[in-house]
Amino acid sequence: MPLQAQQNQEETRLQALQKVLDSGTLQQVARMLNALRPAEIAHLLEALPLAEREIVWGLVEEEDEGEVLVQLTDEVRASLVSKMDKEQLLAAAEGMDTDDLADLLQELPLTITWELLNSLDKQRRERLEGVLYYPEDTAGGLMNTDTVTVRAEVTLDVVMRYLRRLREKIPPQTDSLIVVNRDDKYLGVLYLTDLLTHEPTDTVAEVMSLDVKPIPADWPARKVANRFEQHDLVSAPVVDEDGRLLGRITVDDVVDVIREEGEHHFMGQAGLSEDADMFAPIVVSARRRALWLGVNLVTAFLASWVIGLFEQTIEKVVALAVLMPIVASMGGIAGSQTLTLAIRGLALGQLSSKNARRLMVKELAVSLLNSLIWALVVGVVAGAWFNSTDIALLIAAALTINLLFAAFTGAALPLLLDRLGIDPALAGGVLLTTVTDVVGFLAFLGLATLFLL
Amino acid sequence: MPLQAQQNQEETRLQALQKVLDSGTLQQVARMLNALRPAEIAHLLEALPLAEREIVWGLVEEEDEGEVLVQLTDEVRASLVSKMDKEQLLAAAEGMDTDDLADLLQELPLTITWELLNSLDKQRRERLEGVLYYPEDTAGGLMNTDTVTVRAEVTLDVVMRYLRRLREKIPPQTDSLIVVNRDDKYLGVLYLTDLLTHEPTDTVAEVMSLDVKPIPADWPARKVANRFEQHDLVSAPVVDEDGRLLGRITVDDVVDVIREEGEHHFMGQAGLSEDADMFAPIVVSARRRALWLGVNLVTAFLASWVIGLFEQTIEKVVALAVLMPIVASMGGIAGSQTLTLAIRGLALGQLSSKNARRLMVKELAVSLLNSLIWALVVGVVAGAWFNSTDIALLIAAALTINLLFAAFTGAALPLLLDRLGIDPALAGGVLLTTVTDVVGFLAFLGLATLFLL
Repeated sequence: MPLQAQQNQEETRLQALQKVLDSGTLQQVARMLNALRPAEIAHLLEALPLAEREIVWGLVEEEDEGEVLVQLTDEVRASLVSKMDKEQLLAAAEGMDTDDLADLLQELPLTITWELLNSLDKQRRERLEGVLYYPEDTAGGLMNTDTVTVRAEVTLDVVMRYLRRLREKIPPQTDSLIVVNRDDKYLGVLYLTDLLTHEPTDTVAEVMSLDVKPIPADWPARKVANRFEQHDLVSAPVVDEDGRLLGRITVDDVVDVIREEGEHHFMGQAGLSEDADMFAPIVVSARRRALWLGVNLVTAFLASWVIGLFEQTIEKVVALAVLMPIVASMGGIAGSQTLTLAIRGLALGQLSSKNARRLMVKELAVSLLNSLIWALVVGVVAGAWFNSTDIALLIAAALTINLLFAAFTGAALPLLLDRLGIDPALAGGVLLTTVTDVVGFLAFLGLATLFLL
Repeated sequence: MPLQAQQNQEETRLQALQKVLDSGTLQQVARMLNALRPAEIAHLLEALPLAEREIVWGLVEEEDEGEVLVQLTDEVRASLVSKMDKEQLLAAAEGMDTDDLADLLQELPLTITWELLNSLDKQRRERLEGVLYYPEDTAGGLMNTDTVTVRAEVTLDVVMRYLRRLREKIPPQTDSLIVVNRDDKYLGVLYLTDLLTHEPTDTVAEVMSLDVKPIPADWPARKVANRFEQHDLVSAPVVDEDGRLLGRITVDDVVDVIREEGEHHFMGQAGLSEDADMFAPIVVSARRRALWLGVNLVTAFLASWVIGLFEQTIEKVVALAVLMPIVASMGGIAGSQTLTLAIRGLALGQLSSKNARRLMVKELAVSLLNSLIWALVVGVVAGAWFNSTDIALLIAAALTINLLFAAFTGAALPLLLDRLGIDPALAGGVLLTTVTDVVGFLAFLGLATLFLL
């Protein structure tokens, strides 16, 4: 098949499936579906509205169900799992990786979890318990226990014979074997490329690489991701506090962490979860959004209350009511730029209390420069509009004050929230807007009351 | 070294460096610095304010400079490169991967590019030209040309002898060799694990895997990233339109694409580039931010103009001025939730014109439900505050209208912008706010003028 055609075919897969769903037979859909990889099926399911999603899910072959579930975002998975019966769940759990099974377990009713654990063989259950011991968003929660380990004192020849015996049991994304001592303590890694290119009579100790530092099981996922990015890793060993090998993290799970972190920041700003299902049931969506709207309503009423303090001033000079949103909104924009920069710096571990003061100074300087420019522009336009020098001076002053407050809040808020254990990506925007609205209205209407009346 | 200590040591590296910079000698800094990996040095440089950054950069060993430059974000790299002389640049370019060198070249003055190209040996220059032919954000721009290829008809034994000869020349992240025919056309991949576990007398054709589909060089980077995520790839071959092998993409470059895509969405909402340098020079930062503030100012003035149309109404009922920001801001919040969901769906390839109507219907329903709840709350509070049933009914009606408009705009705007070739992550928020502000003020003040006076 020519490549161009292959590419086009992939692009229109969703459209094709949709068309077949609209007009074709279920057999046709099933045939198309089961030619796909589990991750691709998951991707399609997420793009389908609820009714179609359930039909298509019913057509997925039983042996693929587990893998498809693993690849779905939490919210979509939970909704499908909630409609599966016990037998289906037990069947789906078979053949899942331990780290994925551990994730799935957290979403099952307790009775099924119990039955599922009992249905596993001893070795698998012990491995699963090892993973379940650690929270989902730590190195321990990300790891897989399917490691291939070798001892330092054996020769490469022995390792190769060992691998040949394992053959099908070598897990995917194995670029290296993990070297441990008698007590299971981590010593180093033996890259397959080194195994292949050195003399069969060399020992593992002579050939192994020592520059892969093991990852402690309690590291947060974000830190694991930074390590993978900075060291260009494909896989990395995970150890307990005594340096004993617990498992291995592979880059595919790290890719998911990075994707989710990016989405968390983006979606969090709108009060959405990174797992949000585009086609969640209407009532479920509405309930979740209502909470966020409610939080923001408190902010909005606070701003209104501030305006209300100056009712008499506005009554005398209506131009103030016309212009006041400009002061508030420019502050919000400037502040969110600083806030965004600071939240990213914090996430990458590049902003800490050590260099926060430097960022603050820089952001205040940037804001001062910008307030000079825009105070002038807004002042001239507003002055000409309402034919009043007083109003021009007033709005210019209020804008400058608000932009400086915005820079200060944008730089200080993320660090403060982080120290309080509150997620800045979620709460930062609302709090910032509260400050810029309140300060904006207060400065503009307050100055007007003092100088204009 | 106990693990806990090692972990703490890593966490405080930035602090320690900062302290040494403040008080220690340059030799101390240089010693600390050169114990780090290039990616870690790059990470530190990004976290340093400008003056310190230049000092530390001067201490990086010459042989590491190229690798460090590669790992920096575009903006920080460009500022360092602009201060390097020709000899330094030529030295740094030595030993860089072709894909990284191609990226660097785009930032150099033309005369240096020319000299640099001439200083390369023929093979390397040809490879570089192959990469430069494709835009940076396509598969061709991401690929590396350092592939290890084998022919299908040879035996594994021959492959192993070949690898032993290559030894140090095998590129990192090689989990598989690429199988090509006499015309360099891609046939399949030979995983190292398969090479290790099959009989030496087997041929490559018998053992190779056919399930890795090659990536066309003109695929956009985002699509490459989706492929890597869905197929859990470590590396993948890149081919031209005739199926001839051009190079290979490795997962470390894909990780960067995913990280940047996430940051692009997050930072774009505040009008910032994903490459934005936290410690860019003040004037540079101010100029860039000014543009965004200017764009938003137009929006703000538009909203003010709408309010201005109703000056006489406000003069008679000042309560309107007090309450009007609530209607506008609730619309903005609700709209941004829909917008965010739609932008993510678009980025993941899960939203298209095919299912857009379904999303629209769902979002309108969610918004209607929420407007019922919040119109009631806002109506009751506002009515009690100003002791007026008219105002209660008025604000409830205006809020409902604005929330419905917000849902419609949030769902329709990203697809519209995408079709026009405008980036929804960058322009979506501003345009949405324009709509929710204008509609909010217009509905509230317009209804008031009709029914209240």
